Amino acid sequence: MSEAGTVRLRLDLAYDGTDFSGWAAQPGRRTVEGVLASALTTLLRAAEPVRITVAGRTDAGVHARGQVAHVDLDPIALAALPGRSTRTPEGALVSRLGGILPDDVVVRAVSRAPTGFDARFAALHRRYLYRLADPDAAHDPLRRRDTVSWRRVLDVGEMNAASRTLLGLKDFAAFCKRREGATTTRTLLELSWVRLPDGVLAATVRADAFCHSMVRSLVGAVVAVGEGRRDVRWPARLQERTERAGEVLVMPARGLSLEEVVYPEDPQLAARADRTRARRDAPGSPVAR
Amino acid sequence: MSEAGTVRLRLDLAYDGTDFSGWAAQPGRRTVEGVLASALTTLLRAAEPVRITVAGRTDAGVHARGQVAHVDLDPIALAALPGRSTRTPEGALVSRLGGILPDDVVVRAVSRAPTGFDARFAALHRRYLYRLADPDAAHDPLRRRDTVSWRRVLDVGEMNAASRTLLGLKDFAAFCKRREGATTTRTLLELSWVRLPDGVLAATVRADAFCHSMVRSLVGAVVAVGEGRRDVRWPARLQERTERAGEVLVMPARGLSLEEVVYPEDPQLAARADRTRARRDAPGSPVAR
Repeated sequence: MSEAGTVRLRLDLAYDGTDFSGWAAQPGRRTVEGVLASALTTLLRAAEPVRITVAGRTDAGVHARGQVAHVDLDPIALAALPGRSTRTPEGALVSRLGGILPDDVVVRAVSRAPTGFDARFAALHRRYLYRLADPDAAHDPLRRRDTVSWRRVLDVGEMNAASRTLLGLKDFAAFCKRREGATTTRTLLELSWVRLPDGVLAATVRADAFCHSMVRSLVGAVVAVGEGRRDVRWPARLQERTERAGEVLVMPARGLSLEEVVYPEDPQLAARADRTRARRDAPGSPVAR
Repeated sequence: MSEAGTVRLRLDLAYDGTDFSGWAAQPGRRTVEGVLASALTTLLRAAEPVRITVAGRTDAGVHARGQVAHVDLDPIALAALPGRSTRTPEGALVSRLGGILPDDVVVRAVSRAPTGFDARFAALHRRYLYRLADPDAAHDPLRRRDTVSWRRVLDVGEMNAASRTLLGLKDFAAFCKRREGATTTRTLLELSWVRLPDGVLAATVRADAFCHSMVRSLVGAVVAVGEGRRDVRWPARLQERTERAGEVLVMPARGLSLEEVVYPEDPQLAARADRTRARRDAPGSPVAR
């Protein structure tokens, strides 16, 4: 629910994470949240800094093409945004943000959030992309910001075979940085690899939510299979552990981007958010990321 | 023909043109040719700077994913490159270049050039890509280095209709920066537009060769049609002129990249190069770009 007297907006945004210390605001660091909150606060002449709730709190260096956030704003300040233009307040906000945001963040769309919408808690699942260029790929310097170079040739067939063994509702403790009092149980809906036309390996990783460093650890475990260092059953054996597996490489952030956040149909939004919040509040439950 | 006592190598390379003052070496400027020639000269301990012949002399800010060049090298210096490794001299050169080139240039492959090969004169045609994001496209900050933002919505159907009228063996004087004593007759083999899955407009532009600023001027003329400022026959009417058309916008360099250079089968290389050179040496003939 939006705060009393405010109007909730959904923001769809994209960013090049290279020069950000991740999503979450931190004193003295350049973060996406910090830059965006500061722009919104300026445009709306808000007395207090605008607070932003985000679907995926990306780490330092991780990108997004399909990030979703919400903000609760003063309706009077919002209505003033178009000035004498014929634009809607939401359209005016997109345009004014485009004028003041740096060129590594783009707010693509702003819309009135439907009842019950919560960018974080109402999400059904999140989809990430990981890009790797092995020696069989054509290295493209224009994609060096979102592609990791890998020295050894990777076998996509073996990687897909290993990836399939990890799918489902499972404990991903072996692939998570532990957090006090949070479970590491998630539903991994998809982990699949393709070679793009230029030879770059692209992983699609989809889950209800992810624990910290989970995508990069899953990719690291599967890459060890792809280069023949580990057998195809090794990631599944790791998954049986209840503690983080130190021998799994956490892959570099630059290859990772949040591509999409999927929400239920409007009538189901509130129920979904309630369910996620209830699970979070239960002892030892997962934190949505 | 390679110089006496040298061996000719073909280099396939890619670069992000953003931070280069174009291909061609210029005193005091950072250029792709300058950076590459300096790396080759260092690796081969050459007494004189290595000279590079390139297929497409790209302008400042223009990128390449499929650039081709050749160099004539001292066979003894080349044979010394692998040292005690089991690599071929060509493989060693790729690897050693990767170690010293900055991360905005990649030499993807080095091979012994077949007899008669000349990167510039033996080329049959060159293919360029131009990327434009209008308001109907999803703006991706990760592609801002090779994509131009356009404020007005563009009609792809109209753009393709206008583009088709420009194809064939014609005088492109209206779209060329004039050079003393060079004709502006070229064969435009393809000029076509598609919307990619993310809504970005991509033009494929293919010709035997291009005069200076030709791709960016053609795109500018067609974009004027796409946004409805000019009718679909306007580019064809411009083409009838024998002088540069000042009302055509030369589009920004960042949207442009050289994607491919096509050569004939090996037995036809020498004849193709001879034919191109003969045309160049005729009075008022085109300069291959």
